[in-house]
Amino acid sequence: MINDFIYDIPVRVYFGRDQLKNLGAELKKHGTRVLMTYGGGSIKRMGLYDRVVKEIKAAGLELFELSGIEPNPRIGSVREGARMCKQHNIDVLLAVGGGSTIDATKFIAAGACSDLDPWDFLDYSKQAPIEKALPIVTILTLAATGSEMDSGGVISNPETKDKNGRLAPALLPKASFLDPTNTFTVSPYQTACGAADMMSHIIEVYFNMNQDLYMLDCFMEGLMKTIIKYAPVAMKEPENYEARANLMWTSSWAINGFVDGGKQLAWSCHPMEHELSAIYDITHGLGLAILTPRWMKYCLDETTVSKYVQFGVNVFGIDASLEPMQIANLAIEKLSDFLFNTLGLKSTLPEVGIDETHFAVMARKSVGGGTLHGFKPLQQADVEQIFKMCMQ
Amino acid sequence: MINDFIYDIPVRVYFGRDQLKNLGAELKKHGTRVLMTYGGGSIKRMGLYDRVVKEIKAAGLELFELSGIEPNPRIGSVREGARMCKQHNIDVLLAVGGGSTIDATKFIAAGACSDLDPWDFLDYSKQAPIEKALPIVTILTLAATGSEMDSGGVISNPETKDKNGRLAPALLPKASFLDPTNTFTVSPYQTACGAADMMSHIIEVYFNMNQDLYMLDCFMEGLMKTIIKYAPVAMKEPENYEARANLMWTSSWAINGFVDGGKQLAWSCHPMEHELSAIYDITHGLGLAILTPRWMKYCLDETTVSKYVQFGVNVFGIDASLEPMQIANLAIEKLSDFLFNTLGLKSTLPEVGIDETHFAVMARKSVGGGTLHGFKPLQQADVEQIFKMCMQ
Repeated sequence: MINDFIYDIPVRVYFGRDQLKNLGAELKKHGTRVLMTYGGGSIKRMGLYDRVVKEIKAAGLELFELSGIEPNPRIGSVREGARMCKQHNIDVLLAVGGGSTIDATKFIAAGACSDLDPWDFLDYSKQAPIEKALPIVTILTLAATGSEMDSGGVISNPETKDKNGRLAPALLPKASFLDPTNTFTVSPYQTACGAADMMSHIIEVYFNMNQDLYMLDCFMEGLMKTIIKYAPVAMKEPENYEARANLMWTSSWAINGFVDGGKQLAWSCHPMEHELSAIYDITHGLGLAILTPRWMKYCLDETTVSKYVQFGVNVFGIDASLEPMQIANLAIEKLSDFLFNTLGLKSTLPEVGIDETHFAVMARKSVGGGTLHGFKPLQQADVEQIFKMCMQ
Repeated sequence: MINDFIYDIPVRVYFGRDQLKNLGAELKKHGTRVLMTYGGGSIKRMGLYDRVVKEIKAAGLELFELSGIEPNPRIGSVREGARMCKQHNIDVLLAVGGGSTIDATKFIAAGACSDLDPWDFLDYSKQAPIEKALPIVTILTLAATGSEMDSGGVISNPETKDKNGRLAPALLPKASFLDPTNTFTVSPYQTACGAADMMSHIIEVYFNMNQDLYMLDCFMEGLMKTIIKYAPVAMKEPENYEARANLMWTSSWAINGFVDGGKQLAWSCHPMEHELSAIYDITHGLGLAILTPRWMKYCLDETTVSKYVQFGVNVFGIDASLEPMQIANLAIEKLSDFLFNTLGLKSTLPEVGIDETHFAVMARKSVGGGTLHGFKPLQQADVEQIFKMCMQ
């Protein structure tokens, strides 16, 4: 059955090489006091920082800055940002960076409008309502998480070893600037991790047993084919605009909510990966790459095989006349080959420094202490088994 | 080269069987005095009229009505609607119907906020600016034009025999209700015409020679496959929810602007068809069905063949190892077969009562008296030739 849904993605996207000229006017819609957030020095090295500052000054806006937002962003940065917003009466936030910077900025925006500690929004036992947030504008520098066009974010709390996510309409950016040339300096390794992250976003939605909208399945197959076609190109030719542009726009559409329409949503690999990177601080896309093929293998049986067949035939062009189980296993092989050979990502947990020590606790947290209602329902023992499959 | 573009589609879409419960709250966001616009009696026969009136009354809103909006809507209805808005201080327009009703409502909304005659917005020699319009909410009853999620409309002027279109951001609906069950009563013939209309919207964008975003080409191929798969199902089983839902959501995405990203836009068949239906008042989708395969044949040559190959292989599954020209011609045949055999639409102009009498004047108007910069540039003589190809 196709579920009812509401589609509502009012993010304005400025896409292309020559869009920053619109930055001042866009920010001005929301106020005059801007807090710019970013991570390390990469935006300075690539010249983007100077360009952004110039546009902001030219528009007569007042600029404040928060740098040092971590990959796997931490609640400490969020708290500091929210404090700065209150201290300086910030009107609008400008996140310049990848998913980490944008995610942190979302909770800064919410924290700025609240007397609560920002972790209260993310603590699963509290889930404090997010009714208001400062307006957010983003300038994306990494095609991966899709945070530039969705209403969610994930924040780590090193004290509690939690890595929690939250969605709220108030966190949706007002506008995002997607200039593919801003990803020209992304390393082949980070490009690969971003591709794996996008791929996983789509697979989490695509592998779903409720009858849903064929047009969206077609769209997801197109997005996956786009990633498979262009990620290797971008790794080899970092300044290939066509490749960077296709990957960048794909990152947004993989997770902005459009593909969810009518589906019974249920993600599996992301909750598992969040527990891995909460403890081991590995790159999100890398953790997903390791987990996804094993999870697919674990979930494959007579009741689920038809979706694997659709995936194998439509995404990898596997011969539709083969036996369904054969197509399904070939599809998992092709995906593994893409992730570990074409993208060159490490393929096992030991290779990224993870052993069995915390499997039980990570598995228990992944399933929220009960059942993870994904493509197939998973309990703690199932997730432990999937983790074990990732050992070799 | 992939052009820069701005993506901005802030239409809220309520999709599914049980969404009208949200109608009152949605309308109330925009005011209390509602003008409901619709066509003939079909919304009364199907019970939708009663349901809508009930929701409006339950929300405590004041209801005014304008009925009788024509298929190929006329400027007279627009003028009358604009007059009513001013007379009754209307806050928000509710269009209940297909593309004709929604198109007319858009120009009513603009006319209500202006002292100009509404035709001034549509007269190509005047192009009066559209800066303001009343908010519009739609309830869609026909999957075809995509007007529910775009900012354009086409209006006929019987006095001048013009049928003119106009796009303006202010005309974008605030919200649209897409309930596939509201299309259960659409006849097989109208379903077929709607399918041809959607197909044409996609083909007009897809057949484009500038290098553009592969991910969007994949998406368009998915939309076309969706139409080919489900239009015949909906014709045979009018109450097949899956078919109606796929067609309905496809109608919106075929033309809401997403697929345009980065392309050098240039439509060919729509300008030609508008001239046909301006004089002969034929159904838009039917006119497009007759024109499109002839236009494709006329434009096929060594410089354009690669796009036909992509289309034939990815949409119709034609063997990619054949010669390019052979694939291209097969693709046109397959499309004709879909339109004229599967959908059962009439395939020539004489069958719909059109002869050569007005070919010259219609061709001249199609190209705006100069060159139509489409997939291939077309001048008056080219269009006359395409019209002639439609005679048999």
